Amino acid sequence: MDKTIDELYKNPDDKNIQNNFQFILFGGTGDLAHNKIIPAFYNLAAKDSLPDKFTIVATGRRYDNKNAYLDALYNSLINKKEKIDDKVWRFLTEHIDYFQLSFKDENDFKNLRKYLKNKSKKEKVANRIFYLATAPKFFAEIAKKIEKFNLLEIKLENNESRLVIEKPFGHDFKSAKKLNDTLSSIFSEKNIFRIDHYLGKEMIQNIMVIRLSNPIFRALWNKDHIDNIQIYLNESEGVKDRGKYYDDAGVIKDMFQNHILQVLSLIAMEEPENLSAEEISNKKVEVFKELADNDLSNIDNHIVRGQYISNIVDGEKIKSYREEKEIDSQSETATFMALKLFLNNERWRDVPIYLKSGKRLNKKEAGIAIEFKDSFHPAYLDQNKLDNNLLLIKIQPEEGISLRFNTRKPASNNKIVPVEMEFCQSCQQFFNSPENYEVLIYDMISGDKTLFTSWKEVSYSWKFIDKIQEKYAEENINLHKYPALSKGPKAADQLLENDGRKWLDNNK
Amino acid sequence: MDKTIDELYKNPDDKNIQNNFQFILFGGTGDLAHNKIIPAFYNLAAKDSLPDKFTIVATGRRYDNKNAYLDALYNSLINKKEKIDDKVWRFLTEHIDYFQLSFKDENDFKNLRKYLKNKSKKEKVANRIFYLATAPKFFAEIAKKIEKFNLLEIKLENNESRLVIEKPFGHDFKSAKKLNDTLSSIFSEKNIFRIDHYLGKEMIQNIMVIRLSNPIFRALWNKDHIDNIQIYLNESEGVKDRGKYYDDAGVIKDMFQNHILQVLSLIAMEEPENLSAEEISNKKVEVFKELADNDLSNIDNHIVRGQYISNIVDGEKIKSYREEKEIDSQSETATFMALKLFLNNERWRDVPIYLKSGKRLNKKEAGIAIEFKDSFHPAYLDQNKLDNNLLLIKIQPEEGISLRFNTRKPASNNKIVPVEMEFCQSCQQFFNSPENYEVLIYDMISGDKTLFTSWKEVSYSWKFIDKIQEKYAEENINLHKYPALSKGPKAADQLLENDGRKWLDNNK
Repeated sequence: MDKTIDELYKNPDDKNIQNNFQFILFGGTGDLAHNKIIPAFYNLAAKDSLPDKFTIVATGRRYDNKNAYLDALYNSLINKKEKIDDKVWRFLTEHIDYFQLSFKDENDFKNLRKYLKNKSKKEKVANRIFYLATAPKFFAEIAKKIEKFNLLEIKLENNESRLVIEKPFGHDFKSAKKLNDTLSSIFSEKNIFRIDHYLGKEMIQNIMVIRLSNPIFRALWNKDHIDNIQIYLNESEGVKDRGKYYDDAGVIKDMFQNHILQVLSLIAMEEPENLSAEEISNKKVEVFKELADNDLSNIDNHIVRGQYISNIVDGEKIKSYREEKEIDSQSETATFMALKLFLNNERWRDVPIYLKSGKRLNKKEAGIAIEFKDSFHPAYLDQNKLDNNLLLIKIQPEEGISLRFNTRKPASNNKIVPVEMEFCQSCQQFFNSPENYEVLIYDMISGDKTLFTSWKEVSYSWKFIDKIQEKYAEENINLHKYPALSKGPKAADQLLENDGRKWLDNNK
Repeated sequence: MDKTIDELYKNPDDKNIQNNFQFILFGGTGDLAHNKIIPAFYNLAAKDSLPDKFTIVATGRRYDNKNAYLDALYNSLINKKEKIDDKVWRFLTEHIDYFQLSFKDENDFKNLRKYLKNKSKKEKVANRIFYLATAPKFFAEIAKKIEKFNLLEIKLENNESRLVIEKPFGHDFKSAKKLNDTLSSIFSEKNIFRIDHYLGKEMIQNIMVIRLSNPIFRALWNKDHIDNIQIYLNESEGVKDRGKYYDDAGVIKDMFQNHILQVLSLIAMEEPENLSAEEISNKKVEVFKELADNDLSNIDNHIVRGQYISNIVDGEKIKSYREEKEIDSQSETATFMALKLFLNNERWRDVPIYLKSGKRLNKKEAGIAIEFKDSFHPAYLDQNKLDNNLLLIKIQPEEGISLRFNTRKPASNNKIVPVEMEFCQSCQQFFNSPENYEVLIYDMISGDKTLFTSWKEVSYSWKFIDKIQEKYAEENINLHKYPALSKGPKAADQLLENDGRKWLDNNK
């Protein structure tokens, strides 16, 4: 290494961030704005990663003046940060405007138009980023009003307007397509930024780098060397305040349709010809298409669904899912799902892919396990069956990578034992990962779409999810009950045990 | 992992060590006996790895009674150990006999015979291990006397006698063959244990396990994936009290003919069909044979020789090699050598192998670096040239293994930086490595020849070394002077720089 990592970090080659923009935030008084979006701007400001010429125009109904809004933001920020840097906060407040607006009130939109137009004229700034941090049911309505009230009418040269839209994008293929038809009649695909906040996580962004920039992994990344792939996204929390949304979505739409399928596509896709967002997206889409080819006729060999029931942990009663706030007391919504799938292509044929996610599991942990094949008969080394080599990409809470390999136990008669080499990214101060919204906002400002999902990705992932959901309906798949804060349904272990395998996460 | 490493370590599956033996130690009053052999027996006794029925018969001229000898041993042991366990020491002393003997005195041998015979009769123990811990010039003489005075005359059934012989085994092929002809007229090859104490080191024993028990390394272990191999055995000490021996041997016989070629053979050999000592030895011999095929006609492209000159370090004058005790003041002996070689076989064709060893370098460090090839054009990842993947097997002072791989620098525009995954064996208490003589003595007792060098290995390694030495003589190769406690001659760096590479050790 010519430069130490430390040196490299001190001199980051930051992107040439776009020089000016208006950031129009719908849902500016909501949780997401308070807890993610504004804190992300604060962090970017603290790192001097924002231009001098930008305005966040936060819209909302709750407050009638900017100061009240700023006070509320400050209170949220204090809850998140140990210390607020006054200078950074001052910089930020100078760039925040508050505009009281109701989605239903056409006058409010007319006034917003006037306000933005004047601002653009005065400041010669007309790049507009419309960020819809609202409930999904308003996405289409707001987009239509953006068009109707001419918020896109831009006279200055070389300006573009972008639309940023939070998840979920529809609730099945049909609804997603309807929403997309609306949006794409107003914004070009290039300017629609669909957020999957999981893609902003450091180790998710790292997957492609790990795969492509390391010849040793690259050489092993196929069915000849890999025995199986596992992706797990285990949560220990329950549904909290999101009962209404969650009871409708369930784990399949909350986790699989977006985060897990996105991670899988990065792990399993063919190598892109170049690193353009479009090329990468095309390669990911191929994975989603092939997923839909899975023959799910023997559904119990592919899917385990579960729902948590109450439990006593450390003397405390943990509520069942059905007892949670805003959940139907007879709900059949799955809070856990395990899937076994195949990709019928030359790279992955016959390599099982095991996916798992659930709420109220006993350990919060997300990661990817790449288990390698045996390449010898155990008798060769005069040992019992050895543990397979294992590459773990740890997404959260720890970030890092580890490699399990076999070594000689010292002072033994060549007894072979498995040990782990580790690189802990989150342990290293100079590798301090930014929060994911910080990354995503930075990228939407600079116009990098790599971490946003294309319409093709969304549509094909829905087609696959729809296929599974149809199976639910047809076959009335068992909903396994599992105690809250347990390892999940036993049937999920059985799914792998039937193949002579086991889950490689730490959810025991 | 079904068992934790800790559990495995607590229940070592020790070998069924041979139940009884007489261990006749020639050179029992010398440095090696005091500093290595007896301490190794002490360690084995402390671990309860010795049978009840054995005697160490230490022979020497210096003392005329056992107590004087034991006092001397105790004093040496105290210098090595923080604490001596009285119980262990008592057990050991009960198993040590001292027999005053001069190699030259035939009567002494006659008496030794009587003594051993009586002992065998009385104790019904007749497995005899003759350990020649003497100056090499006495090896043949002692072996002949062992035969002449019938120390091998054994009447009990199922007994075997072994000969253990220290290095160096000859000083060229011719002298080695002469010595071997003598020894093998008395002992069968099976019962001649040639010590290369380097093979007792934990990480050297681990090389074959790492190669063979890890499918991921196994798949990459060839010219398609490996760019170059480096083995370095750097010493910071000077010749100390070994001037007389060293000035004759030089680095080539002190380090290359034995340790370095042995390590290389373990790294480069074809996979053995089974793990028998004989099969492994045969595979190692193939490497030595192929080494001799190197075309050394353009010798400066292959060899850099060096000798250290005086230096001032931290205000202190460090002697030149020629100023050291018992060194010829005009000595042309090399204290440093770097070699560039190839193995002309399907596995390694065109993969350069760089070997290096020297005295008085600025860092004591031994290790093996396996540098992997690039597999992409740098433009693909939109980066400057990336560091290659690198597997380091660390032999000493740290024992362990590390893997350098590329990762995304967080908060950067996909800037790729090299980091290391590490497994530090010597950092882990339960992986506490035994000293190498402990391992070697254990193996010679139990009859495992894997860590001892066969005659074939010795003979073919000498043939290769002879070829290099002939080149010295013919071509009067430059002897580069390097300051004591420096990184060695610049020409050694140049050797790799000419190939666009650099040394991967930490000797900077």
